[in-house]
Amino acid sequence: MYPKDKLLFTPGPLTTSRAVKEAMLRDLGSRDGAFIDLVAGIRVKLLDVAGVSKESGFEAVLMQGSGTFVIESVIGSTVPRDGKLLVIVNGAYGERMVKIASVLGIETSVLKVPENRKPDPRDVEAVLLKDASITNVAIVHCETATGMICPIGQVGQIVKSLNRIYFVDAMSSFGAVPISMDEAGIDFLVSSANKCIEGVPGFAFALVRRDALVATEGSARSLSLDLLGQWKGLERDGQFRFTPPTHALLAFDQALDDLVGEGGVSGRGARYQRNCEVLVHGMQALGFKPYLNREDQGYIITSFLYPSNAGFDFGEFYHRLSDKGMLIYPGKVSDADCFRIGSIGHLMEQDMRDLLAVVKEVLEEMGLVDRLRAGARR
Amino acid sequence: MYPKDKLLFTPGPLTTSRAVKEAMLRDLGSRDGAFIDLVAGIRVKLLDVAGVSKESGFEAVLMQGSGTFVIESVIGSTVPRDGKLLVIVNGAYGERMVKIASVLGIETSVLKVPENRKPDPRDVEAVLLKDASITNVAIVHCETATGMICPIGQVGQIVKSLNRIYFVDAMSSFGAVPISMDEAGIDFLVSSANKCIEGVPGFAFALVRRDALVATEGSARSLSLDLLGQWKGLERDGQFRFTPPTHALLAFDQALDDLVGEGGVSGRGARYQRNCEVLVHGMQALGFKPYLNREDQGYIITSFLYPSNAGFDFGEFYHRLSDKGMLIYPGKVSDADCFRIGSIGHLMEQDMRDLLAVVKEVLEEMGLVDRLRAGARR
Repeated sequence: MYPKDKLLFTPGPLTTSRAVKEAMLRDLGSRDGAFIDLVAGIRVKLLDVAGVSKESGFEAVLMQGSGTFVIESVIGSTVPRDGKLLVIVNGAYGERMVKIASVLGIETSVLKVPENRKPDPRDVEAVLLKDASITNVAIVHCETATGMICPIGQVGQIVKSLNRIYFVDAMSSFGAVPISMDEAGIDFLVSSANKCIEGVPGFAFALVRRDALVATEGSARSLSLDLLGQWKGLERDGQFRFTPPTHALLAFDQALDDLVGEGGVSGRGARYQRNCEVLVHGMQALGFKPYLNREDQGYIITSFLYPSNAGFDFGEFYHRLSDKGMLIYPGKVSDADCFRIGSIGHLMEQDMRDLLAVVKEVLEEMGLVDRLRAGARR
Repeated sequence: MYPKDKLLFTPGPLTTSRAVKEAMLRDLGSRDGAFIDLVAGIRVKLLDVAGVSKESGFEAVLMQGSGTFVIESVIGSTVPRDGKLLVIVNGAYGERMVKIASVLGIETSVLKVPENRKPDPRDVEAVLLKDASITNVAIVHCETATGMICPIGQVGQIVKSLNRIYFVDAMSSFGAVPISMDEAGIDFLVSSANKCIEGVPGFAFALVRRDALVATEGSARSLSLDLLGQWKGLERDGQFRFTPPTHALLAFDQALDDLVGEGGVSGRGARYQRNCEVLVHGMQALGFKPYLNREDQGYIITSFLYPSNAGFDFGEFYHRLSDKGMLIYPGKVSDADCFRIGSIGHLMEQDMRDLLAVVKEVLEEMGLVDRLRAGARR
């Protein structure tokens, strides 16, 4: 009935299961009991995925819009009016947080780290010790521009020991990379419906320490993106303050159940890890090199360098793959020509092998096979 | 396979067609050509619905989130930093615009009109003549709290003759109530995917006069909700700056085609008008009275007064209707006890008759039939 879709080897929107999409074949009233129950269930399930609970002091707040919307919601709602935000930046998504804070007129300090390096917790400590006016610290867990996983636990221990509010953007990692909110001292964590939980896009969410959230009263710089206001609305009557994406929420509920069915974070993480291993191994065999060192590379998304010796035309490479039903992603590193391939979404090991076979085919069509292999041998 | 859903006699999310929902059974890459083409097509079709075009100086900008998000986007992006907003308020949705401006720290003047009265264009003129510092004027077309249609054309002529920027919230009317952006002098008009176009929730949109939009450079108070930034992004590469709700957009494209198939705004408006006539006539026959005078009543949604003489328990009424598969909506008028019934969405005359039959059944169960009729005769 519908054309077979391309497989999405991207950071999202992702390939989702048929069951997740079919969950959207309904129309629920946004103020009806059935929908209120759905939302309540989703909020509990999200806390479960994080290994926390209302009883242990945590809350799940859903927010309409894309992941960036909930990042802006947290920054704009939780940095005090006279506060100062430190953003740890080692890629494009860290830069975006700086930009959000700048547009909101929030005083901001930036700890800039090279894109191929992990932030050093001692550097964070030094900045915080030197600048007592910093009230909030933000970091990206999986910097999706490169695929690097940052040491949010070690950084968090420093942030908490120095008594600052800690915000982790776990957009592309939550649900597949283990995170201990408690041990890492995370006050606010965000992710989105269409990343590792494998729902469809339309909303994002924040998992928050209730005390930290309640303490932000009066800080919100937006009505729509008011995080505390949104939480109060959900607590008051179980409803969103403003129209929720009912269909995306139906899909997400199914996706959360499927995540549990797969063994939760560890089960899903294991599949993605295997996907990524197959991918990286296969791409290396074809002569491609990852941008990051192996020890810095997460299993969510991998940046590959353009082969330097092969007259590589990414546009042609991309379109030939796309024509064969495989969608990869352009790069987002500032100092190197890269493209990205994601390992997440409803993709199995066989899909990665199929992708590799198509990459090989395309390289042959482009007359690049031997040249890439020659590069790889050097 | 799925339970038959309740019919939604609400202001949205609405009952949608099966075809609209089935359009979501796909996963498109948000940076892929197929999706870029989809978005471009939607933007052209939206201008077509409004009877304007790029050539005549108009643009369609899509914005993630609910309708309120795009209202905040327009207010926060188009009122100059040193500007002042006049909001014409005759109901809850006008009040919400005032609240948005307040949270954003925008200087605001309010022209308050009783909820059962139409704004008088001469009053708008008087306010604008008296206060030269007002730069922007905002009004709600169909005040969804009551169902009243406000005279946006007459008000617009005054606003433009006095050289102010004119913003019309046509959230619940666009696509089913004729609007002439040119004649009414509208610079910015907003509506949402899940109102009269009968898509699913997940995004909203602004139709804008390009010159007015371009002139707002530097005014945006948010990154996510930056209207000019969003437009520039769409123009640059056809893509959203941040993850779009791909599935909701697929549904919307189908919904726009179905709108054309129904005869456009006039065809859809005719069905809704018939729905509303059947509803109001039937409810009056049962003893209910509309909140508004007949001449002020639009055909989008109708507010009915609680019957005063009948010991009416709205909660019980609502739940009994809901149990029989009919979802109506609570009231939102500040000075009268009302409930609301919408005439929009994928609902036909027979659905309205079915609703009326169920209302009668429920009144019988509640022992209210005779008492309501006695009230109606007086």
